[in-house]
Amino acid sequence: MASPHKVLLSLLSITLFSFSVSPVSSQHEHPLDPLSPVEFSLIRDAVKRSYGASGENVTFQYVGLDEPDKSLVHSWMSSQASKKPPPRRASVVVRLHGQTHELVVDLSSHQPSIVSKEVYHGHGFPMLTIEEQTDAIELPRTHDEFIQSIKNRGLDMSSVVCSTFAVGWYGELRSRRVVKVLAFYTNGTVNFYMRPIEGIVVVVDLDLMKIVKYHDRFATTVPTAEDTEYRLEKQNPPFGPHLRGAAIVQPHGLGFDIKGHTISWANWKLHLGFDVRVGPIISLASIYDLEKDKYRQYAGNIMWRHTEVGIPDVKINEVRSDVSLVVRSVSTVGNYDYILDWEFKPSGAIKFEVGLTGVLEVKAVNYTHASQIKEDEYGTMVGANTIATHHDHFFTYHLDLDVDGAPNSFVKTNLITKPVAEEGVPRKSYWTVSSKTARTESEAQLHLGLEPCDLIVVNPNKQTKVGNNVGYRLIPGPIASPILFRDDYPQIRSAFTNNNLWVTPYNKSEKWASGRYVDQSRGDDTLAVWTKRNRKIENEDIVLWYTLGFHHVPYQEDFPIMPTLSGGFELRPTNFFDRNPVLKTKSPEPVILSCKP
Amino acid sequence: MASPHKVLLSLLSITLFSFSVSPVSSQHEHPLDPLSPVEFSLIRDAVKRSYGASGENVTFQYVGLDEPDKSLVHSWMSSQASKKPPPRRASVVVRLHGQTHELVVDLSSHQPSIVSKEVYHGHGFPMLTIEEQTDAIELPRTHDEFIQSIKNRGLDMSSVVCSTFAVGWYGELRSRRVVKVLAFYTNGTVNFYMRPIEGIVVVVDLDLMKIVKYHDRFATTVPTAEDTEYRLEKQNPPFGPHLRGAAIVQPHGLGFDIKGHTISWANWKLHLGFDVRVGPIISLASIYDLEKDKYRQYAGNIMWRHTEVGIPDVKINEVRSDVSLVVRSVSTVGNYDYILDWEFKPSGAIKFEVGLTGVLEVKAVNYTHASQIKEDEYGTMVGANTIATHHDHFFTYHLDLDVDGAPNSFVKTNLITKPVAEEGVPRKSYWTVSSKTARTESEAQLHLGLEPCDLIVVNPNKQTKVGNNVGYRLIPGPIASPILFRDDYPQIRSAFTNNNLWVTPYNKSEKWASGRYVDQSRGDDTLAVWTKRNRKIENEDIVLWYTLGFHHVPYQEDFPIMPTLSGGFELRPTNFFDRNPVLKTKSPEPVILSCKP
Repeated sequence: MASPHKVLLSLLSITLFSFSVSPVSSQHEHPLDPLSPVEFSLIRDAVKRSYGASGENVTFQYVGLDEPDKSLVHSWMSSQASKKPPPRRASVVVRLHGQTHELVVDLSSHQPSIVSKEVYHGHGFPMLTIEEQTDAIELPRTHDEFIQSIKNRGLDMSSVVCSTFAVGWYGELRSRRVVKVLAFYTNGTVNFYMRPIEGIVVVVDLDLMKIVKYHDRFATTVPTAEDTEYRLEKQNPPFGPHLRGAAIVQPHGLGFDIKGHTISWANWKLHLGFDVRVGPIISLASIYDLEKDKYRQYAGNIMWRHTEVGIPDVKINEVRSDVSLVVRSVSTVGNYDYILDWEFKPSGAIKFEVGLTGVLEVKAVNYTHASQIKEDEYGTMVGANTIATHHDHFFTYHLDLDVDGAPNSFVKTNLITKPVAEEGVPRKSYWTVSSKTARTESEAQLHLGLEPCDLIVVNPNKQTKVGNNVGYRLIPGPIASPILFRDDYPQIRSAFTNNNLWVTPYNKSEKWASGRYVDQSRGDDTLAVWTKRNRKIENEDIVLWYTLGFHHVPYQEDFPIMPTLSGGFELRPTNFFDRNPVLKTKSPEPVILSCKP
Repeated sequence: MASPHKVLLSLLSITLFSFSVSPVSSQHEHPLDPLSPVEFSLIRDAVKRSYGASGENVTFQYVGLDEPDKSLVHSWMSSQASKKPPPRRASVVVRLHGQTHELVVDLSSHQPSIVSKEVYHGHGFPMLTIEEQTDAIELPRTHDEFIQSIKNRGLDMSSVVCSTFAVGWYGELRSRRVVKVLAFYTNGTVNFYMRPIEGIVVVVDLDLMKIVKYHDRFATTVPTAEDTEYRLEKQNPPFGPHLRGAAIVQPHGLGFDIKGHTISWANWKLHLGFDVRVGPIISLASIYDLEKDKYRQYAGNIMWRHTEVGIPDVKINEVRSDVSLVVRSVSTVGNYDYILDWEFKPSGAIKFEVGLTGVLEVKAVNYTHASQIKEDEYGTMVGANTIATHHDHFFTYHLDLDVDGAPNSFVKTNLITKPVAEEGVPRKSYWTVSSKTARTESEAQLHLGLEPCDLIVVNPNKQTKVGNNVGYRLIPGPIASPILFRDDYPQIRSAFTNNNLWVTPYNKSEKWASGRYVDQSRGDDTLAVWTKRNRKIENEDIVLWYTLGFHHVPYQEDFPIMPTLSGGFELRPTNFFDRNPVLKTKSPEPVILSCKP
């Protein structure tokens, strides 16, 4: 039976970047601050109140800051926060009686109030709450057929753990709000993902909170618990390899300053927000008047260097050490863990890195040796009875760059080969650049890897002293693009990954590349659809959407928990400064310590 | 006048890797140790003596270790260094009376002797010595026409600095051993590369050590010294951005051990050699019985982690910190500085990174603003009168992997999309893998970036417990390939960059991808030529040649000295271990210090 392998789509990490030389106020209450615990309570009370008697049945699927218009934030900032901040609002999605309601709650007045309420009639469902997932995975435990299935397999119910999985959309005309519940076995390990109990289909309707479909199709050997534990206290000697301890000491202070949600470090200043769906949101990052969270790599990275022996009797060896600010967040999505790093450098560069770790998804098989496998099992045998399945990871970054102001253009600088046919010149070719500004959205869509090019966001209204447009460029890392058929259902839904890069005009409502309601979406509300309008993007407030991807063929080293695998990209100033902005940066003073461990 | 832009080719970084689980002796005298100062003296004396009266005219162009055959090194190692080491020999290239002589000097006996002496009659010339470059750049100073040219430009001879540049090969039938000498101006800066004196052609014959061609073609404004200084003591306030000092403290010791040229760290052991042409050579890197030079990134990188909340009433948060060993070398090639890092990880991964910094090559023009430029100037205006020219950097790594023994195969695992046409299955496609072992050299040649694939070196004779072939895979970073015409002279000479990856059977004489004599070579002794024999590479001792490239369009931030730009690739164990090799690694103990700065 060909069970087509599963594609794990990670639709996350929306990041807002704004480059400007304007100073950022460091007042404690900032219009982009995430909602506070007090505000969450006020919102809950206001929403429940507004539904009267039905209020008790409302479930909160999403609550987040409804960001004020950019122009209002900028105007508040340019007033050095002396102006009244823009109205503070929350965006709320609730479920009630099987319907999705979208609300906007105003928090500016003393008594918070609902300023907008609409029932959503489109496709797709909101995010699952922890509570409803917890309820759903408890249902099989008291379901007679499930109890029988576990018994038939000779397994002990007290060691069975369940987990919810989204059902996707495969062309069904009608969708109900359901999830699949899969069963796993602990019994000697916490790494239950390595012990799937195969063949049981359990579908739970979340609105009814009951099992609406049950089917025991087949059984396989459950892989052994042996070698799957990752907790330190469960490991037996010998341990190793042994690593020596090290500490970073900064006797002159940490070097960064946090006021409210605003971080200052070296020549950077930025606002770090948070959203339950996308995680950290970095806004208003500005370099010049200077900005942090954590130091890294402090051990001999080189910002720039040069040794010069070309001048008689002069010997020059100039080196400046590099220090970076790393904003790190870790997001555990079920079995997988994603490490998201934003590394800010004094040179103006920002490096984005995603690290993949955690536990693979595996399926159980009756095979115990690779030589027994005669047909496609959609993965690698990583242990006896255990196939780790092929899968993809895609991360779409929302990069709202305002290079020295909002009106920007996207310029693709192609590196092109030209023939040399001049008399007396033996060279036959050379390469040069040909720059093209994208006028509309379709002109900016890019499938990378085929031709060499530089990808630059410029401010066409601002020049350096010698007349280059100020800009920032995106330097891609390793590229991976989707390899499913374009008309396959998962790819219809994730069509926003069909290009590595898209550029759109800024639009407050276009926040998540995958659309507002991803669960069972039909792909009709994604970046790929919005951009079909082919809007003007030249000298406009524009947003870059960059997709970072990994095709993951697992190997045995990824079992039972995988060593971090990383990829990323870089934003780098491009004629943004008149010259090297760290030319006059001194290496930090050497630290001399007298320490007692 | 169209002066086709210059392509900077960096043909370096040959690295020898050998993966095996066999223990490496850590005796002080190792057959792969680089030549010692005493040995250099012995070689000089022996060579001079062998030429009798002509001995005084001999110039030494290259002296390096003639590595013993691999089999001899392995047999010596497996004897725990109790056997006599293999004969110690040096490979020497000298010039005498306008000819290139190749010598092998035996150092095993008490009195070193020449065991082989041949005159080389092929194309290309050996490396330039520092001494002959120093002599060559002094010649213009006393050359009447040059003195007149400097005077005509109103410049002061005492501030003129010259530098040598290879002339390349453009189809000439006869070549002499010549270099171009270009002139620059200091006068207020040490960054003379930013002040080229254009239009003067000086060609020096190195064998005659005299100017054989002189032509003053045209003059341009020499760019100002202003803003070009990079030395700290020449900078005026304000300084910044300010970075705080930090120190890494390892109270339990550095964690690595160096005996002779053998480095042990964590689960790694490796031999670090050195060659004047390629820099550091890492050999016999083995993981299991453990091997170093320097710590990095020690600050919160994550080897692996997982948070688990899926088991009722159990909360798990397991994290292991990562620590790496970095072997770093910096190579200044005239104006440019290359930072070469090899990062060894306890997980068995090795990350290769190249950092580009130093000073750009620029040309002087009469323009002072970009708007004045009406035709292709082959670069970016980075300052008044200053165009930084487009160029490429290519680094070819010689990766001699012996995965668990010498006989290995190269396997390309293609990720392929397959249709699903099964009744009742709504999915339309899925992807799977199709592995193909390269039988001959031509089957392994790869132009990356077009199709997704995993590139694996396996030992087809060794399997893991569940039956996968043990292997290591190469994970490419960003890809750049040459974009000159294939029949253009520079590309004929650097045809070994035409593929991103080549695989050859091990051959002691095939050491440098660019051939033995690169200066004015005609490309007839490169990897691209050797591999035309299309030898068998399946289950053989094989070598991977990986080319890392950068197309560099300069920007103003790169002036007057460029912030480091990096790229790299990774080697990662692939079913080499039965499971995650760092599962049982403990994070280093936290360091608690009482310090006084």
